[in-house]
Amino acid sequence: MREIPDSHPRKASLLARAKLTEAASQGLLAESALIAHGRGEAFDYLLGEKTSESASLAIRETAARLQNAERPVISLNGNTTVLAGEQAIMAAAIIGCPVEVNIYYRTPERMKKLTSTLEETRNKVSQMAPPTGWNSAQWHDSVKSVEVLGADADGRIEGLEGPRAICSSRGIEAADAVLVPLEDGDRCEALVALGKQVLVIDLNPLSRTARMAHVTIVDEVSRAMTELCSALVEKPEISQWDNGQALRDALVIMAQASNQIPS
Amino acid sequence: MREIPDSHPRKASLLARAKLTEAASQGLLAESALIAHGRGEAFDYLLGEKTSESASLAIRETAARLQNAERPVISLNGNTTVLAGEQAIMAAAIIGCPVEVNIYYRTPERMKKLTSTLEETRNKVSQMAPPTGWNSAQWHDSVKSVEVLGADADGRIEGLEGPRAICSSRGIEAADAVLVPLEDGDRCEALVALGKQVLVIDLNPLSRTARMAHVTIVDEVSRAMTELCSALVEKPEISQWDNGQALRDALVIMAQASNQIPS
Repeated sequence: MREIPDSHPRKASLLARAKLTEAASQGLLAESALIAHGRGEAFDYLLGEKTSESASLAIRETAARLQNAERPVISLNGNTTVLAGEQAIMAAAIIGCPVEVNIYYRTPERMKKLTSTLEETRNKVSQMAPPTGWNSAQWHDSVKSVEVLGADADGRIEGLEGPRAICSSRGIEAADAVLVPLEDGDRCEALVALGKQVLVIDLNPLSRTARMAHVTIVDEVSRAMTELCSALVEKPEISQWDNGQALRDALVIMAQASNQIPS
Repeated sequence: MREIPDSHPRKASLLARAKLTEAASQGLLAESALIAHGRGEAFDYLLGEKTSESASLAIRETAARLQNAERPVISLNGNTTVLAGEQAIMAAAIIGCPVEVNIYYRTPERMKKLTSTLEETRNKVSQMAPPTGWNSAQWHDSVKSVEVLGADADGRIEGLEGPRAICSSRGIEAADAVLVPLEDGDRCEALVALGKQVLVIDLNPLSRTARMAHVTIVDEVSRAMTELCSALVEKPEISQWDNGQALRDALVIMAQASNQIPS
């Protein structure tokens, strides 16, 4: 990975890019994953590369819904595993739920690599300082008990065809609430149709996923997942949620980027 | 390349993506090229994936400036070669100017592959139907006489360091007007500082390149280059050009995408 000086104003973005190109060369990502990341970069650029107040509200709502669900699960694809795998394991440990590797272009090799990566991440996170309200022993045990599902492949998402329908029977199939950062539109629609609470992180407020989900966090995945961990510790309450407003808020911020052009 | 049905509303975008992932696997592109393309996809999505009236004006202005220049050149990087190599050769044949392979992450292998690709493209274009006003023999000769520069590497762009400064002495170094689709900010700035007319195609109206250039076409590169060929045939006149207006026009269109969210 190239050295990026701390002073660089877009260090986080360049670091994310470096992580992904490295992961791609290791075979963790589908061929279109870098293009998808680039799309996200553009929307994040328009957002000013920071979490908006509106996105923070969506993160709190997501935290509340995950903690109030009976069988929540965090679904992880390649890009999320690479960019926010640590935060996903932390969030799952705080909630007490499994994570599930669930990828659009499913191959046994990529499933294995992503599952192994998350198991290594789990070991690392179990040694880290616990969040507020946890002692080290509790935290270690809770992190270690986070299941990494996906390889089992014994469940189905009804309404989808072929390998895209495959999931874990104890994960997404059984879940009443699913956090799916970076999901595609078809699968988001299928999960909604199954009556699950669908909570997504998507930088494109116009995407089908963003518009179909119950709660859409319009934010970059590693920032959003980091803030989700903080929000989970605070145990917020479920609110009356207007998701269209969250999308419009994001679009207003992106539209205001036009003020940057001198007239 | 996967089959994409003709009926798919985003066929052009998916086809471009397939071309690029194939080119990446053949070693024609730098590792960040797919991410850059994804950023473009996002902005094009907000533009509605069509050439705006404002972009058409910028294309006509670019055509006029290229035809009125003494030593124009079309600079091509990996993504442009893959997505709009044919149109670039056509435009160069109409103008009577060289094209130059000029890439940010310069390696001898990629220079060779891109130069060879453009030489094959030149052969192909020389056999194609001529544009309005040309007969087949004229067109064949004009296309065949388009020089593919870049491998010579005997020139420098003053103001840049290292391999990024390398160019052709008969191309970019000598040019008074450069069409640089998909240029990076540093090089755009250096070319402007050298007093050249810098004409760019950039889907991000907020990028440094878009804001530094004399004329910025905010449009997808293959659409813009196709329309440039038509505009060149019409021989438009140079106008009083307000490039800030072109950028603001693009941002207004992107901002209007917010109307797509039902309230």
